[in-house]
Amino acid sequence: MLKCVITMGDVAGIGPEVTLKALANKRIRQLASFLIIGNAEVLEETARVCKIKLKANKIDSIEKLNFQSSGSVSILDVASAPSLVFGRANSNYGRIAVQCIEEALRLLKLRQADALITAPVSKYAISRAGFNFCGHTEYLARATKTKNFAMMLIGGPLKVVLATRHISLEKVACELKTKELSQTLALTAKALKKYFSISRPKIAVCALNPHSGESGLLGFQEKRIIQPAIAKARCLGQFIGPLPADTVFHSAIKGEFDAVVAMYHDQGLIPLKMLAFNQGVNLTLGLNFIRTSPDNGTAYGIAGKNKANPGSMIEAIKLAVKLAKKTKKGC
Amino acid sequence: MLKCVITMGDVAGIGPEVTLKALANKRIRQLASFLIIGNAEVLEETARVCKIKLKANKIDSIEKLNFQSSGSVSILDVASAPSLVFGRANSNYGRIAVQCIEEALRLLKLRQADALITAPVSKYAISRAGFNFCGHTEYLARATKTKNFAMMLIGGPLKVVLATRHISLEKVACELKTKELSQTLALTAKALKKYFSISRPKIAVCALNPHSGESGLLGFQEKRIIQPAIAKARCLGQFIGPLPADTVFHSAIKGEFDAVVAMYHDQGLIPLKMLAFNQGVNLTLGLNFIRTSPDNGTAYGIAGKNKANPGSMIEAIKLAVKLAKKTKKGC
Repeated sequence: MLKCVITMGDVAGIGPEVTLKALANKRIRQLASFLIIGNAEVLEETARVCKIKLKANKIDSIEKLNFQSSGSVSILDVASAPSLVFGRANSNYGRIAVQCIEEALRLLKLRQADALITAPVSKYAISRAGFNFCGHTEYLARATKTKNFAMMLIGGPLKVVLATRHISLEKVACELKTKELSQTLALTAKALKKYFSISRPKIAVCALNPHSGESGLLGFQEKRIIQPAIAKARCLGQFIGPLPADTVFHSAIKGEFDAVVAMYHDQGLIPLKMLAFNQGVNLTLGLNFIRTSPDNGTAYGIAGKNKANPGSMIEAIKLAVKLAKKTKKGC
Repeated sequence: MLKCVITMGDVAGIGPEVTLKALANKRIRQLASFLIIGNAEVLEETARVCKIKLKANKIDSIEKLNFQSSGSVSILDVASAPSLVFGRANSNYGRIAVQCIEEALRLLKLRQADALITAPVSKYAISRAGFNFCGHTEYLARATKTKNFAMMLIGGPLKVVLATRHISLEKVACELKTKELSQTLALTAKALKKYFSISRPKIAVCALNPHSGESGLLGFQEKRIIQPAIAKARCLGQFIGPLPADTVFHSAIKGEFDAVVAMYHDQGLIPLKMLAFNQGVNLTLGLNFIRTSPDNGTAYGIAGKNKANPGSMIEAIKLAVKLAKKTKKGC
């Protein structure tokens, strides 16, 4: 039996809603035994708003946790009930979101869970609560002392890995470095082999600049950073690039590549969300446990209105279960 | 009768091929009377490779030009035959490409043509020939002393306007300025009214940074540059934004916006080329004549092999004709 942990994310966002909606689906629930880490009152209120009836066993500390059979759901109630206002960032909610992640990490370090699925948090709310938080990916990597990690986004026919993540656009060019990029390329090749059984992956590498730098007229990073990174990683897979980003995804959709490495957030996320809106999944590469998440944000505009689509969360759970099974088998 | 000029673009690229292939299509040819500006021997060799038979009247100076009836094609032979090697940038070819544009400009200034369609050139070849050339758009704007201009890309369900164009990614953030951006927004609204008869256009404006800057955590340009630009242009149309670029195109495809203003090249071109590969058209806004072009590049890899798809060129001609008709009617 697989044991999956879901952190409910930001109280004011759609995290609690998509978590409950996904687990209300019997086919999804049967995939594993689930523990939701969050606030019980928030989850109860969300269930009432969304008219969801979900039988769950409430506990107040992980010491009392007993993963039951597949299809069972427990709730670890981590915080005293906050006054609930949907759609607004609040430092109190930020603090609770971090508390959920910390509890999940305790479980994973104790090897009491097989996979983690994280619902969306508000970076703003968490930073208001005083935490240094760039995103789940970075937080989990730091907490587990993982130096070499990456974000892979999966949706429709695409698998996209980001070379840089949540940074402002003006910082992208100077954050892009040959050593780190070649590590990301290596991680991508390894993940395609380990998780997706692709023995010799063919990976497209995006250029940073328009028209792949147009022979140096529009930037030097293609020649000085990306090409050397590809050369370094070459033995691990077939890397094609740097390719102009405005045409590479068209080829990727047709199945010409097993994955695309994008140089920055929007370069990779624009094509992915166009093709797999409400279906995209974020998978962290490099951690010593499986972690996925839906690729949507807190979506404050629709939070608490029973309007959130649980599609991405469902895909995130399905992928986490699939990879956890594969990894257990491999051990 | 409409008079259209096509510059054949870079000798070594797919420009001559897509031009001939488009005009070999009788339905397209009948839309106007066409003048191709280029090198006659290159066009003849291309016709031979592609097995195209096209009746054309060859002239050696624009003084001898006589646009005949719709369906007629003339060739203005601008340069002595270069030794022809497909797929390689060459300063001689760069010089010829500029010569073609200059001849076209002479005609347009004399008001002897209604629209210009430009086939792809190599910026590298042109810069090797000693010209200061960032792209057709900038070159034509400078030659006609047009200060306020923009690129609109049209394909499938999308119309995308770029706030910055052919510059390296690291320069985007500092090139983005409130005044210029508000002018681009205004041009977009005006073009939608004038060319596409949308009386109150609804225009999405992309954010520069991931997650629209995440309340300032990932960049300040949303608040300090984009929001003020929107406020300035507000009276001309309904501008929505800044919106996260990774979700805005999904909404645009569903028809929620009449156009999207992207902050930089790949942000706008990635979604467009995904949806309209071999169909995208580039329209220059702000010039005092109609200018379109196919949205592909020289595609050196397939040049001279009868492999180029003329789809984008056909769409570029169709749009130029449609807008030229509309503009003439309006006069």
